[in-house]
Amino acid sequence: MRIDILTLFPAMFQGPFSESIIKRAIEKGEVEIYLHNIRDYSEDKHKRVDDYPFGGGAGMVMQIAPIARLIEKLKSERNYDQIIYLSPDGQRFNQKEANKLSLCTNIILLCGHYKGVDQRVRDHYITQEISIGDYVLSGGELAAAVVVDAVVRLLPGVIGDETSALTDSFQDNLLAPPIYTRPSDFNGWKVPDVLLSGNEKLINEWREQMSLERTRQLRPDLLDEE
Amino acid sequence: MRIDILTLFPAMFQGPFSESIIKRAIEKGEVEIYLHNIRDYSEDKHKRVDDYPFGGGAGMVMQIAPIARLIEKLKSERNYDQIIYLSPDGQRFNQKEANKLSLCTNIILLCGHYKGVDQRVRDHYITQEISIGDYVLSGGELAAAVVVDAVVRLLPGVIGDETSALTDSFQDNLLAPPIYTRPSDFNGWKVPDVLLSGNEKLINEWREQMSLERTRQLRPDLLDEE
Repeated sequence: MRIDILTLFPAMFQGPFSESIIKRAIEKGEVEIYLHNIRDYSEDKHKRVDDYPFGGGAGMVMQIAPIARLIEKLKSERNYDQIIYLSPDGQRFNQKEANKLSLCTNIILLCGHYKGVDQRVRDHYITQEISIGDYVLSGGELAAAVVVDAVVRLLPGVIGDETSALTDSFQDNLLAPPIYTRPSDFNGWKVPDVLLSGNEKLINEWREQMSLERTRQLRPDLLDEE
Repeated sequence: MRIDILTLFPAMFQGPFSESIIKRAIEKGEVEIYLHNIRDYSEDKHKRVDDYPFGGGAGMVMQIAPIARLIEKLKSERNYDQIIYLSPDGQRFNQKEANKLSLCTNIILLCGHYKGVDQRVRDHYITQEISIGDYVLSGGELAAAVVVDAVVRLLPGVIGDETSALTDSFQDNLLAPPIYTRPSDFNGWKVPDVLLSGNEKLINEWREQMSLERTRQLRPDLLDEE
């Protein structure tokens, strides 16, 4: 899988992409991630990439020209399954969408900053708009990092223990059951007896029941989904 | 505001916290962010912090002892408004919650990794569980960075143009209207005439109408909220 990230702040990805799962996936060749600085595609002599909004109002708007130049260049080099804009008013990202994106070959992630990009970028270049949640961030960079992380960990061979991702929350519309590890008694706080019983059948039943109870209590809406 | 982040991967925050808004907020003294490596609180001679789950199954579980030691130490030094665990089964984070957290003085953000933390940490130390969305990440680090970004940009004095945050999506349960900047004609794609009219009243009416239309079309659920 190849991911091209278009951003004004490529350095923001330094930590997230040089640690843990994503780092491993890159090293194993499961994913190629390319960071493109939109500023490099400005033809302004001051490398300007934003301007005041037409009609007035607060905040700056990212101009269409540098973004258009960069996207046209990438599109001339290969086909993209999706050109995604991270925006709080996009379609809500969830585990199903992560599964779907993990099957793509090439995707572009465009990170807005300031008040966002000129609407014409969205109208003419973007094929999908994604929101990671109902809150506003200072830019699309963290949202892009979140999408990359959620997608890349699903690629075959990335997570060491193959069955691990399958038992995560949401893969079956249920929250994960409580988990415990040693010591079995800490400060008098004990691990449930059933988990120490060695009886696999009872343990599985308990876990299913806890998953269901937890979902009913915390996220009953998940049980209504198909 | 003071934010203490408890993590096994402090380097993941390097990019997100050394760029853009958060960097500026730190430099201006609006927020202090402390990264604590949970591994430093392991008393195991190999600095081990995780172990196999009781009852079997895939994935590793973060042990309670190092986390408990670190949280107890921090709590002995100051009072915390919230001790937050980032988890996909937590309460869904949104702009209202970001506003609320921006009023706190001291908070702790605990980042899980692997399959998560021992349930007893959640039962006995955590005061609030937050999910940034219905998807699974390789750890709580990106989720913590998202929460920090969403909260810190709301602190007074952090965003340059004070009115900018108030016109974001969600602050009034409406999505933001489309925005445009120069050139007014790009490739034949034109900016709506009204925005070039100079008529402030018409522009405001158009924006309100577009906000409402966009919300109705993309996120009708937001209009049902109080």
